[in-house]
Amino acid sequence: MTHYAKITIDTQREGMVNITSRITEAIMESGVTEGLCVIHCPHTTAGLTINENADPDVTKDMLYALNEISPDRARFRHMEGNSAAHVKASLMGAGITLIVHRGRPVLGIWQGIYFCEFDGPRARTVHVQVAGE
Amino acid sequence: MTHYAKITIDTQREGMVNITSRITEAIMESGVTEGLCVIHCPHTTAGLTINENADPDVTKDMLYALNEISPDRARFRHMEGNSAAHVKASLMGAGITLIVHRGRPVLGIWQGIYFCEFDGPRARTVHVQVAGE
Amino acid sequence: MTHYAKITIDTQREGMVNITSRITEAIMESGVTEGLCVIHCPHTTAGLTINENADPDVTKDMLYALNEISPDRARFRHMEGNSAAHVKASLMGAGITLIVHRGRPVLGIWQGIYFCEFDGPRARTVHVQVAGE
Repeated sequence: MTHYAKITIDTQREGMVNITSRITEAIMESGVTEGLCVIHCPHTTAGLTINENADPDVTKDMLYALNEISPDRARFRHMEGNSAAHVKASLMGAGITLIVHRGRPVLGIWQGIYFCEFDGPRARTVHVQVAGE
Repeated sequence: MTHYAKITIDTQREGMVNITSRITEAIMESGVTEGLCVIHCPHTTAGLTINENADPDVTKDMLYALNEISPDRARFRHMEGNSAAHVKASLMGAGITLIVHRGRPVLGIWQGIYFCEFDGPRARTVHVQVAGE
Repeated sequence: MTHYAKITIDTQREGMVNITSRITEAIMESGVTEGLCVIHCPHTTAGLTINENADPDVTKDMLYALNEISPDRARFRHMEGNSAAHVKASLMGAGITLIVHRGRPVLGIWQGIYFCEFDGPRARTVHVQVAGE
């Protein structure tokens, strides 16, 4: 049994958008109780990650650290000028696969699923596939 | 066919714990011969990665490099003081998906699956879902 | 329904090799129309990532940035001397899971799937498992 869904997100220049509840919704709509859920970001200057959902300073610190780890660099050649964002996208990754167990995504109590915008504002999309029994 | 399992790990302050044999066990218990295995870390200051299992200096060098890449930073605001660990968790990632083929996880001869502790010591858990035929 | 395939790649000293068409081929061979595709790199000094497929300067900038983020470090102890490549492999990751929808991998129009060589030239392999209906 599979269930495919799309989520749309309007982003700011940069930011981490908590999409956990929308993923949980897609899983509940699917009717899958045991299986998995693949989340895919189809953009190359944005990514997906799982991190703390409690203190909003954590995601702020993460964006700050990622700008230190992947700053704009004088020797970048890509004419669009957003290579730093492309690097951050690959550091976070374009996909997340969650376990679905007893009809719910398996997540730690402090975990949230974040869409990471590194080159907005843009209208973004995330694809979701739930598969299992 | 799906099979869900939990693994518990006691960690030190930081370290990379080889959990390959425990993942292989969960796969063999599942009875799945063709399919996949999703491994999920429910913590936000720890992650999962695959890297060399032969020379223990590789994982030591990795922890050292991750501390250089994501050091504690004066401008971090998260009051708990462990933002560097949160960043490292996202750089490694919270999940791994393995191919299961002929009843075994597909891994290179030098590959091990590592639980990466960045903010221990703690009692940690890893979730495993095996799905397939 | 599952379908297992292997892809072989001859690499240069470092580089990002676009393997998208070969992954799409494996998915089409599988006959799966709804499901997912797990791609696994069995090497520990190479990885997999998804990024821009249009301007070749993006992958050049990524390799350059990864060398800045994970340079060779004087304090590395691994005798083989390629710890920087091991770190880059874990930063990119050993695996990618794609959504398969309507018989095709779900990818953004600008996305390509890249095999990232950090310690070549070598003869490399990538494993693919397609699962679904």
